[in-house]
Amino acid sequence: MSLEQVAAFLRGNDNFHILTHAYPDGDTLGSGYALCLALQQLGKNAAVINNELPKDYLFLTRSLKTQDFTAQTVVSVDVADEKLLGVNREKYEGHIDLCIDHHQINRVSAEIKHVEADAAANCEILYRLFRFMEIKVTKEIADCLYTGVSTDTGCFRYNNTTAETLRIAADLLELGADNAAINKVMFETKTKKKLALEREVYDTLEYFLDDKCAVIAVTLEMCRKLGVRSDELEGLASIPRQIEGVLLGITLREREEGGFKVSVRTDSNVNAAQLCAKFGGGGHAAAAGCSLNGTLQEVKEKLVEAAGEMI
Amino acid sequence: MSLEQVAAFLRGNDNFHILTHAYPDGDTLGSGYALCLALQQLGKNAAVINNELPKDYLFLTRSLKTQDFTAQTVVSVDVADEKLLGVNREKYEGHIDLCIDHHQINRVSAEIKHVEADAAANCEILYRLFRFMEIKVTKEIADCLYTGVSTDTGCFRYNNTTAETLRIAADLLELGADNAAINKVMFETKTKKKLALEREVYDTLEYFLDDKCAVIAVTLEMCRKLGVRSDELEGLASIPRQIEGVLLGITLREREEGGFKVSVRTDSNVNAAQLCAKFGGGGHAAAAGCSLNGTLQEVKEKLVEAAGEMI
Repeated sequence: MSLEQVAAFLRGNDNFHILTHAYPDGDTLGSGYALCLALQQLGKNAAVINNELPKDYLFLTRSLKTQDFTAQTVVSVDVADEKLLGVNREKYEGHIDLCIDHHQINRVSAEIKHVEADAAANCEILYRLFRFMEIKVTKEIADCLYTGVSTDTGCFRYNNTTAETLRIAADLLELGADNAAINKVMFETKTKKKLALEREVYDTLEYFLDDKCAVIAVTLEMCRKLGVRSDELEGLASIPRQIEGVLLGITLREREEGGFKVSVRTDSNVNAAQLCAKFGGGGHAAAAGCSLNGTLQEVKEKLVEAAGEMI
Repeated sequence: MSLEQVAAFLRGNDNFHILTHAYPDGDTLGSGYALCLALQQLGKNAAVINNELPKDYLFLTRSLKTQDFTAQTVVSVDVADEKLLGVNREKYEGHIDLCIDHHQINRVSAEIKHVEADAAANCEILYRLFRFMEIKVTKEIADCLYTGVSTDTGCFRYNNTTAETLRIAADLLELGADNAAINKVMFETKTKKKLALEREVYDTLEYFLDDKCAVIAVTLEMCRKLGVRSDELEGLASIPRQIEGVLLGITLREREEGGFKVSVRTDSNVNAAQLCAKFGGGGHAAAAGCSLNGTLQEVKEKLVEAAGEMI
């Protein structure tokens, strides 16, 4: 559906619940809060329904109004599949009215779907939508959108970054986005504990498939020992992919409920989403995720075997 | 002097030697090779006179012609002070005709000086100059300029990044700059040896001044043990500054000739250039450098004492 239809739908409805994906990142949260602020600006009732809000993202909610209403309209942002709704899946699955997303493969069933797979970030789509709807992009909305655009492109490092991405970021800076402060929090700040964790993680590094695949693991024991929270684990996934000669970097994070959350980062020649799809996950060509049950050794073997078929 | 005067000077002269600063980075090299390619495009003789060319930057020279000529005109790019010319200082000091730079404090004596301290990268100035001169920004020139713009802004992370910086980067992408490949080499690639070195460096981390100052050190012994070359040390300087609560991150690199090369990275409230100026160095508000003689302990004490007066 076109941006025009999305705009008409948003204008024609009210009392919005906006859904983000579980293990939320800057793009899903930036999209959610930007849309919420935009809808409130239009005089609508709106709320973001999160699984969790890591403390680094609290600033996105600064100027949000808490409104008392009953949901009539459900919108998902940056959600590729209803399975990824986490704790909100049971309540909202099958009830999404509008889906705005930028994943290559989107499996959400919704009345209106607007998916732009060539957008580096979902927040790019929202920026164009707001421009089209003549919504005032306030400093607070600009901060939300900048957060999504910068985090989903690794601060404009990754190959999904286009000239359009950079021009949108330029506009957002002029609209007041506090890029330096946001980048500092998202990319340039490590707690002392996280630094200690990185050291431990370096010790788990293993190479497979003629050193083309590197795997690191974060166990619950490590996190407990160092007192690291799960929201301090962001960014670890880029470690194995950065090693010279590695085409496929895999990061395993042990889950409280058993098994592992898997983050895959790849070189341009290997499709991360395709690998993760084999295990019911998804994502983008260069960055994707899935979850696997089993011991560390079992999970590693399954992934390396599947990776071996692709390299 | 205006860009117009710089343009007239370049058009009116020939047989250029272009000087970059010692311990070269992406901005001085990107500037040097971009200018060299542009002058050759205008039918001039030109060569970049380097101290060294780390292998990661070899791609900047791909389409450069080697020309046989005697230097008549000397241009420095991204050089704040003739002291920073390294091995070329003796030959060229006092003989620079044109200086193009973006450092806050520039001490080069030259007939024509064009310094824009608000440009995030020197390559930004060159992009505007080439546009003004109607020089065709080829894919190779775009690669050079993108390298400078991205490396001097930490790939658009640092607070020197402006809307103009991002728009220039967008233009360069459209002109063919291979951003993903360049970023991968500059920011996303670590040799296995470097990863091992990082682990060692983490062990040297010390906090001072109520944990507002963090210091790491790389000794010659570490480099020898791990077989790491000096051009593999880039990026280490960002480690101490990234730690939560640290306003001032100091990285010490032991020099073959004795003493230490010092890299200072700071939060917006502390001026790195001011600190380094106390020891005869210089740079930018958030990133600066100097060299100090003495043992590791002595150098650390001097720097921490000077830092204490500023925090």
